[in-house]
Amino acid sequence: MTIDAPEMDVHVLMRTVDDLARTYEGVFSAETIERYVFESYTALARTATIKRYLAALARNFAADRLRALALAQGKIQSTVPQVLFVCVHNAGRSQVAAALLRHYAGSEVEVRSAGSLPASEVDPQVVEVLTARGIDMTGAFPKPLTDDVVRAADYVITMGCGDACPVYPGKNYLDWDLVDPAGQSPEITGQIIDDIDERVRTLWATVQK
Amino acid sequence: MTIDAPEMDVHVLMRTVDDLARTYEGVFSAETIERYVFESYTALARTATIKRYLAALARNFAADRLRALALAQGKIQSTVPQVLFVCVHNAGRSQVAAALLRHYAGSEVEVRSAGSLPASEVDPQVVEVLTARGIDMTGAFPKPLTDDVVRAADYVITMGCGDACPVYPGKNYLDWDLVDPAGQSPEITGQIIDDIDERVRTLWATVQK
Repeated sequence: MTIDAPEMDVHVLMRTVDDLARTYEGVFSAETIERYVFESYTALARTATIKRYLAALARNFAADRLRALALAQGKIQSTVPQVLFVCVHNAGRSQVAAALLRHYAGSEVEVRSAGSLPASEVDPQVVEVLTARGIDMTGAFPKPLTDDVVRAADYVITMGCGDACPVYPGKNYLDWDLVDPAGQSPEITGQIIDDIDERVRTLWATVQK
Repeated sequence: MTIDAPEMDVHVLMRTVDDLARTYEGVFSAETIERYVFESYTALARTATIKRYLAALARNFAADRLRALALAQGKIQSTVPQVLFVCVHNAGRSQVAAALLRHYAGSEVEVRSAGSLPASEVDPQVVEVLTARGIDMTGAFPKPLTDDVVRAADYVITMGCGDACPVYPGKNYLDWDLVDPAGQSPEITGQIIDDIDERVRTLWATVQK
């Protein structure tokens, strides 16, 4: 069992708790924030193979989740629609959909993605094809599906993850039947991305109505 | 996407929140308990294929986690050692070890188990072999590894899950090199259980010292 600087990680996580406690002062208790940060770290540690950036990823994951929770509970407001993409590994399909919707909609939408069984990293071939198309994939990482992001969503789009996603009233649920790009050739991956691209444009047109 | 009575589940989860809020009055805020119950449900929904008992399993999982958190934070006390077994799927090895230690140590120890990538159910063959040996496996279900149960543990025993487990100071970490019983014949499964049995007896002798 190789442990990559856990003491340093704990140090970073404690600082993250302090920072997020300042951001969410009067919104969430320090107890809630501490729980979110350390649970997010443990959740990512379960599946990540590269441990080096784990504390930094946990910081981003916890911050995203706390924002989603605050939105879901009406503690903060957003004027833009909240869209969540869920696939199995959060390494291909849901990452592509999230990146494309961000690309088209910019700040006009808040996009999140998650997986029922998150992979250890985003599919490198997917990153390559998207980057070649000018789509930014920096900082994308596979994350498990959590209750907070489902609650915050106005639109939940599932792709091949069955009923991994709890259903709450008042949301729009869509299921997209897509081929998994994992292990496919660059050509097939490109076609799958084209398919997702078309669906994302249609979705964005629908969301804007 | 088939949804199995989600409204009924939400009803059960809300009642669980109320019950646990009474149990942990003055220990945890209602906010923390609500988060634990719904996050536990979502975490199990990600990987469980049989959805029928999900709300009941989420109740048990959330209750276990809250007890672990209360112990870890010194908000409640236990006079007995806390032992955590972690494997990949929490379907075979860690379930066997947990069941055997409970069998030998009874109420003299608190035992928990978890997986880095929890399976949809406990390995039926493992349940069969253990039940034939008079070991109770009722109510056992695969659960993801969470921060709270690591924090509460005095002993953390990992089995084939690499460094999925965050390391905190003041705990005893052991790594057991065991064959995964998944897909093995009943004979091999029996041998693996014998191996775990011997290790569990030795561990229990060590813990008692």
